Amino acid sequence: MNTYGDMFRVTVFGESHGKAVGAVVDGCPANLPLSEEDIQKELNRRRPGQSIFSTPRKEEDKVELLSGIFDGKTTGAPICGMVYNKNMRPRDYSHLKDTPRPGHADLTYRLKYKNYDYRGGGRASGRITIGHVIGGAVAKKLLSYTYNIKIIGYTIKIGKICGDFSYYKNSEVFENEKSLERLIEIIESNSLRCPSMNEKEMEEYVLEAIKNKDSVGGVVEIVALNVPVGVGNPIFNKLNGELARALMSINAVKGVEIGVGFKAAEMFGSEMNDEIYFDEDKNIRFKTNNCGGILGGISCGTPIVLRIAVKPTPSIGKRQKTVNLKTLENVEIEIKGRHDPVIVPRVIPVAEAMVAITLADLMIKGGFIHPCSL
Amino acid sequence: MNTYGDMFRVTVFGESHGKAVGAVVDGCPANLPLSEEDIQKELNRRRPGQSIFSTPRKEEDKVELLSGIFDGKTTGAPICGMVYNKNMRPRDYSHLKDTPRPGHADLTYRLKYKNYDYRGGGRASGRITIGHVIGGAVAKKLLSYTYNIKIIGYTIKIGKICGDFSYYKNSEVFENEKSLERLIEIIESNSLRCPSMNEKEMEEYVLEAIKNKDSVGGVVEIVALNVPVGVGNPIFNKLNGELARALMSINAVKGVEIGVGFKAAEMFGSEMNDEIYFDEDKNIRFKTNNCGGILGGISCGTPIVLRIAVKPTPSIGKRQKTVNLKTLENVEIEIKGRHDPVIVPRVIPVAEAMVAITLADLMIKGGFIHPCSL
Amino acid sequence: MNTYGDMFRVTVFGESHGKAVGAVVDGCPANLPLSEEDIQKELNRRRPGQSIFSTPRKEEDKVELLSGIFDGKTTGAPICGMVYNKNMRPRDYSHLKDTPRPGHADLTYRLKYKNYDYRGGGRASGRITIGHVIGGAVAKKLLSYTYNIKIIGYTIKIGKICGDFSYYKNSEVFENEKSLERLIEIIESNSLRCPSMNEKEMEEYVLEAIKNKDSVGGVVEIVALNVPVGVGNPIFNKLNGELARALMSINAVKGVEIGVGFKAAEMFGSEMNDEIYFDEDKNIRFKTNNCGGILGGISCGTPIVLRIAVKPTPSIGKRQKTVNLKTLENVEIEIKGRHDPVIVPRVIPVAEAMVAITLADLMIKGGFIHPCSL
Amino acid sequence: MNTYGDMFRVTVFGESHGKAVGAVVDGCPANLPLSEEDIQKELNRRRPGQSIFSTPRKEEDKVELLSGIFDGKTTGAPICGMVYNKNMRPRDYSHLKDTPRPGHADLTYRLKYKNYDYRGGGRASGRITIGHVIGGAVAKKLLSYTYNIKIIGYTIKIGKICGDFSYYKNSEVFENEKSLERLIEIIESNSLRCPSMNEKEMEEYVLEAIKNKDSVGGVVEIVALNVPVGVGNPIFNKLNGELARALMSINAVKGVEIGVGFKAAEMFGSEMNDEIYFDEDKNIRFKTNNCGGILGGISCGTPIVLRIAVKPTPSIGKRQKTVNLKTLENVEIEIKGRHDPVIVPRVIPVAEAMVAITLADLMIKGGFIHPCSL
Repeated sequence: MNTYGDMFRVTVFGESHGKAVGAVVDGCPANLPLSEEDIQKELNRRRPGQSIFSTPRKEEDKVELLSGIFDGKTTGAPICGMVYNKNMRPRDYSHLKDTPRPGHADLTYRLKYKNYDYRGGGRASGRITIGHVIGGAVAKKLLSYTYNIKIIGYTIKIGKICGDFSYYKNSEVFENEKSLERLIEIIESNSLRCPSMNEKEMEEYVLEAIKNKDSVGGVVEIVALNVPVGVGNPIFNKLNGELARALMSINAVKGVEIGVGFKAAEMFGSEMNDEIYFDEDKNIRFKTNNCGGILGGISCGTPIVLRIAVKPTPSIGKRQKTVNLKTLENVEIEIKGRHDPVIVPRVIPVAEAMVAITLADLMIKGGFIHPCSL
Repeated sequence: MNTYGDMFRVTVFGESHGKAVGAVVDGCPANLPLSEEDIQKELNRRRPGQSIFSTPRKEEDKVELLSGIFDGKTTGAPICGMVYNKNMRPRDYSHLKDTPRPGHADLTYRLKYKNYDYRGGGRASGRITIGHVIGGAVAKKLLSYTYNIKIIGYTIKIGKICGDFSYYKNSEVFENEKSLERLIEIIESNSLRCPSMNEKEMEEYVLEAIKNKDSVGGVVEIVALNVPVGVGNPIFNKLNGELARALMSINAVKGVEIGVGFKAAEMFGSEMNDEIYFDEDKNIRFKTNNCGGILGGISCGTPIVLRIAVKPTPSIGKRQKTVNLKTLENVEIEIKGRHDPVIVPRVIPVAEAMVAITLADLMIKGGFIHPCSL
Repeated sequence: MNTYGDMFRVTVFGESHGKAVGAVVDGCPANLPLSEEDIQKELNRRRPGQSIFSTPRKEEDKVELLSGIFDGKTTGAPICGMVYNKNMRPRDYSHLKDTPRPGHADLTYRLKYKNYDYRGGGRASGRITIGHVIGGAVAKKLLSYTYNIKIIGYTIKIGKICGDFSYYKNSEVFENEKSLERLIEIIESNSLRCPSMNEKEMEEYVLEAIKNKDSVGGVVEIVALNVPVGVGNPIFNKLNGELARALMSINAVKGVEIGVGFKAAEMFGSEMNDEIYFDEDKNIRFKTNNCGGILGGISCGTPIVLRIAVKPTPSIGKRQKTVNLKTLENVEIEIKGRHDPVIVPRVIPVAEAMVAITLADLMIKGGFIHPCSL
Repeated sequence: MNTYGDMFRVTVFGESHGKAVGAVVDGCPANLPLSEEDIQKELNRRRPGQSIFSTPRKEEDKVELLSGIFDGKTTGAPICGMVYNKNMRPRDYSHLKDTPRPGHADLTYRLKYKNYDYRGGGRASGRITIGHVIGGAVAKKLLSYTYNIKIIGYTIKIGKICGDFSYYKNSEVFENEKSLERLIEIIESNSLRCPSMNEKEMEEYVLEAIKNKDSVGGVVEIVALNVPVGVGNPIFNKLNGELARALMSINAVKGVEIGVGFKAAEMFGSEMNDEIYFDEDKNIRFKTNNCGGILGGISCGTPIVLRIAVKPTPSIGKRQKTVNLKTLENVEIEIKGRHDPVIVPRVIPVAEAMVAITLADLMIKGGFIHPCSL
C-alpha cells in the first residue's frame, strides 16, 4: 500500500510531524549517475514557504541518500532517501484530535485504523509526498538518461479562471528544445506554475479567496515527451490506467483524463480518430493527438497528455460544521495551523513524479530499459 | 497483465475470433452460492445484437463453469468460466491486416508484439470484456451476498446531448429500495441505458450518426451503494486510484472522475468540503457527497459516484486515412465488419464489472470479507 | 494463490473430478513457435496408467489450446490450455467425506475453507499438476528456444535404496549433447525414471511395498543446463529461494536442497568454496560445483543442481486411524480408490515444469528474455 | 526484490560499509504496542562481537524508529527502522576489488550489475540481515500479541558433530511454558546456540577450524509454536514453500526441510502418515508430527518444524584460488578483514525473523489477523 510499482518500486514512509519522511527506491538499474542534488532540485520545487500561495511552514527538506550509490552511480541496490522533519508544531493540531476536518482524511483514517496520528494529518498530510518526489526524481533521471524523456506539468485552470494558451494550440512548443526550455522557465518562475496570458487574473482570484479564509482548486496538465512506442500493456495494465492510478495517489486529485479526455464523449468517431500517415522519412505519424499518446493502453509515440482535477485545499480558516467523536456532538471548527490557500502549483512536481515512476516501471517491465544495468 | 486484483484475482483470456474467451476467478471465498445463471445474466447485458445500436454479430455468449463450484457453492478453488466463440468471420478482417485502423490498438499491438492477431482486433477486441464480465459477475454476487452492495451504471450523456435527470439532483432514488429497482428497470429497458427525460433525443442523435457512417461517444455514471466505511488504502492504493485504473482497463475510456470530479477545480474549499454531522441516531452523515464517497483514498460510507468518458467507437464506415505497413504507403480504408455505432450502453456492464472486481479485491484485502470462507 | 510468477505467470484451475483442469499462461513473449504437441508431450510424461507403479485411472489427458496462438506462434496474449476430465469416479470417495485421510490435505482444506470438494482430493489432488505441466511446457519451449536450456529430472533414491551412479561423479554426461540424449532416453524408458545401475533393486522394493498395501517415497534430482550467469536476485528473490518455493508447490515435497545441500553443513569453508579460474579461452570456470550453480542467489553459469525429498504416497490400502468429523468418533479407514504406490517418477515432469516456470519468470524479469517479443 | 511479503511487507536497504542499513515495515496493523526495545533485543542477538565465534567488527547496531508509531502503538503506517553503520573499514576490502572471493556473491553481483560495491560484500554482506531482523522483530511482536506464537531456533549440528538431544525426542519441552523458557535461556547463553549435551565438542571443532584458518557450517532447526490451523495456501503459495523461500533468502542456506524432511524419502506411507484422533476434549490431534505441522501446504495445528543447512562461512584466512578480472589472470588470495569462523549461531535470529515475517504475511492474508487494526 505504501509501495508503488512492480519492477521500479518506490516505498514511502513518514508522518507530517514524525521524525522523518522518505522513500526507498528499489529496482533502479545499476550505473545511473545519481547525486543528492538530482533529488534536492525536485524537492525544492515541492517545498513549502516559497510564495504567499503556500503554507508558511518552514522546512529545508534537505535529502540525504543513505544507500544504493557507489562512486556516484547506482549499484542496483535499493536507494534510501531521507528528509528529517524540522519545523514541527504538533500542538497546532491537538484541538482537532476528536473533530475530523471536513474534506480531510481524518475521519476515514480514524475509522479504518482505530488509531490516528492526527498531528498535521499524520500520514495523510501532503508532506508525505516528499517520498513520491524522491522516487520521482530517481525515475526522472533514469528516463532522461535513457530516452531523453521529459515530463512537464503546469497549471491550466485556477478556480473558474481558464488559462489562455496560444502555444498550446499548436504543439510546436514541445518539439523545439529551445522553446521547451523557455516554457519550463516561465512555469517555474511563476507563483501558480501557469504559463498563461492571464496568470495575473488567477493570482487575484486566489488572493480574493485568501481574504475570505477560503481555498481554491484547479486543473493541471502533464505532458510526457519522447516516450517510445509500445509502453504499457493491453487489457488490465494499460498505460492510461496505470497513470490514472498513479495520479489519483495524490490526495487532492478528483479526476484524470487522457488526450481530449471528457471531450471525447462529444466527438464523432471521424473527429476523434487520429489519422495515421507516413512522413517523408517513412516515420509513422499522427495528424492529431486526440488519443493523448495512448492507443489500446499502449503508447503510440506522440506526447502523452494528461489532465488532473485538483480540489481546493480542504484546510480553510472559515468556520465549518463537523462532529466531535468523543462527545458525540455536532460542532463547529476553525482550522488554524498552516496551510496552502491553493495546492495546485505544489501538486505539479508530485504529479510529475508519479508519472515518472509509472513510466520507469512500465518501461523496465516492457523491456525498454534493462532491469539490472544500464 | 491479464490478471486483475491481488486477493480477488480475475485472469482473462481469448481473442475475438479464436476458439473461446473466458476468465479464471481466483480468491473468491468458499461458500458463496454461485451458478452459471449468475454469470449468464450479466453476460446477456453485454451481449451484442440486442438493439440497432449494437453490432449485428450474433453470439449467444453462453457461459460454462468448469471448476471451483461444489454443491452449488464456491469452494475457494479457482472458478473457470468459458464462452466458446461461434459467429466468427475472420475473413472480414484480412484486408485490414497491414492497414491499422485509426483510433484502434492495431498499430500499437503490432509494433509492441511484432505479431498481431488482426482478426477482429484479436486481443484488443471489445469481445475480450466477456472475461471482465465473468469476473465481475462473481464479484457482484460476493458483494451483494456479504454487504448488499449494488453497483449501477447508466448513460448520462450521448455525444453532445446531456441527460436531463431530476431524480439525480436528490439522491433519494438510491436510498429507497423500491425506487432503485424501478430505476434499474428503466435503465435496462432502454436501448441507450439512459434513464433520462430526453432519451429520445439521444437516440435520434445516434441514428443521425449511423446515417453518416459515423459513431458517437458518451458519459457513463456508475454508483456503488452500501460500501462500508474504510475500504481502500492511504497513499498509493487509494480506492479512487484503483477504481480509475480498473475503469481505464476498458479500451474506450478516456477519463475518470470521482464525485464532483473536474468540477472540484472550480469550487471553493468551503463549497467542496462535505460537512459532517451526527443524525438523530448518532450515525455519522455527510450533508453533501461532493467527494463521491471517498476521502483520502478510503470510503466514507456515502455512495461511491464515478463517471467515465467513453470515446466514440473507432470502427466507422467513413473513409479514413492510414498507412499500409507493408507497402509503406499512405492509404485510405473503409471498415466493413460489424461494429457498434455507439458502444456506451454496452460499456456499462463492463464498467460495473470492473468496479465490482475492484471492490471485492479491496474488501478482502481490507478485512471486510474473509479471504477463505464466508 | 493459484497463479505462479510475476512476468511469466501460470494460473491453474480444476479439480480431480470436476469438468476440466487447465492453465492460463500469461506473459509468454510473442513469436515463440508453439503447438499442442509441445504441451501434449510433457503431459504424456505425467499421465497416469503407464506402469504398475502408477494409478490405474485412465485419462488421455488430451490438451486443447484455446487462445494466445496465431499462425503457429504465440502472440503475447494469454495461452489457455485445457484438459477435460474423462474417467471420473466420484463415488469412490463419498465414503471418505467425513473421515480425513492421514497424510492428505483433506483435513486442512476442510478446516480452512469449511467446504471441501472431497472427490479424489478435489483441488489437492495430484491431478491438478496438469496445470503445472501445461505452464511448464510453455516455459520449457521458451527456455529451449532462447537459451537452449535443458531441464532434466531423475530419481536418485527410492525408499532406502540409493541409486548407484558412476556417470554422476563426473559431470561430463551433461556436457556432451549425445551422452545427454542417451541419458534422457534411459530415464524415460525406465518405470521409476531412475538411470541407475541398481534400478531393479528399487523396483523390487516398490513391489514389496505394494504387496504390503503400502507406499514408498524417494529423492529426485533436477538439473538445469545452460542457464546464463546473472539469473535471480540478491536478498529476497534469490534463484534458490524461488526454486525452493516452486518445488515445494508440489504436495509430496518435504525438502529441497541446492548443490551439495545438507552436506554443506559438514564441510569446511576451504572444501565448500568452489575455486574460480580462467580456462584457456579466458572463460570464467569453477573447479567444483558445490554451490549448485548459484552464488548469493544469482546463477553463476554452472549447472543448477537441485534435489527434492518426495514423501511416500499418503493413499495406502492399509488400515489407518483417523477421525469422523460428523460423528466425532475415532475411526479406522481403508482407502480404496486408485492411487500410485510410488509417486516419485510422476513427480519428475511436474518438478521440471516448476523449475522451468521459475527460470522463465526470472529470466524475463532479469532482462535475459524480452518480455514482449522474441 | 528487496521487499518481502504481500500484506505484511518488509523492504530492506543499506550496504555493509554505507551510511546505514534498515528496513521499512509496511502492512503491520494498527494498535500493536511497539517500541525500539522490541527491535533492539532481536538486533542484539544478531550483533557481531559477542563471542570468539563471531567477527570482531564492533557495531552497536542501535535501531531508531522513524515512523509508524504514535503513543507507543503502531498506526497502520509504514515503520522505518534505521541503524547507522559505525565501525566501517572499507579499505580492508580494496585489494579484493578485482578478485572475487570464492563462495561469495562478489562474482555474480559484479557480472549481473556491472557495478559492484565491493566494500565488505556491499549489498551481499551478512550485515544486510539487520533489515530482516528489524522486520522480523515487528512480525514476532505481532504474532506473539495476537496468537502467542513463539518462534525458536537452535543449532542441532556443527560441522560433522550432531547435537545430542534427549528432550528433542519427546516434544513435551515445547508444550510446557516453563521448560520452554528454560530451553530458550540455555540456547541464548550458549556461544553456538546449541542446547545439546555435547556442545563442548562442537566448540572444540570450531576452535580447531579457526586454528586452520578455516570455517565450519551446521544445521539449524526452527520451531514455530501455536500457529493455528489453516495458515498457508493450496497449490502455489503453500506455507512450506513460502517458508522455504524465506529461509533461502539467507545467503548461507543451501537446503530446507519440513518435518522429517529428507527422511520422508526413506519411510513407508504407513510410517509417514500422521494418525489423526480426537483427544478427550474432542480436539483434533495427531499422534506424530512427521509432516512438521503442514499438510497440503496448510498448517494443521501441530508445531511447525523446519531445518536449514548452513554452509561454512566463505570468508576464510586460507589461501584460495580465484581470478583477477582486470588482469585476466588466475591468482591466489588471502582474505584478511573480519569474519565469523562459524555463522550458524548468528543465522538463527535471522532465520527466526524470516519465519516470523512469512507467518505474519500469510496470517494477515488468510484472515487470521485483521489487516488494518488489532
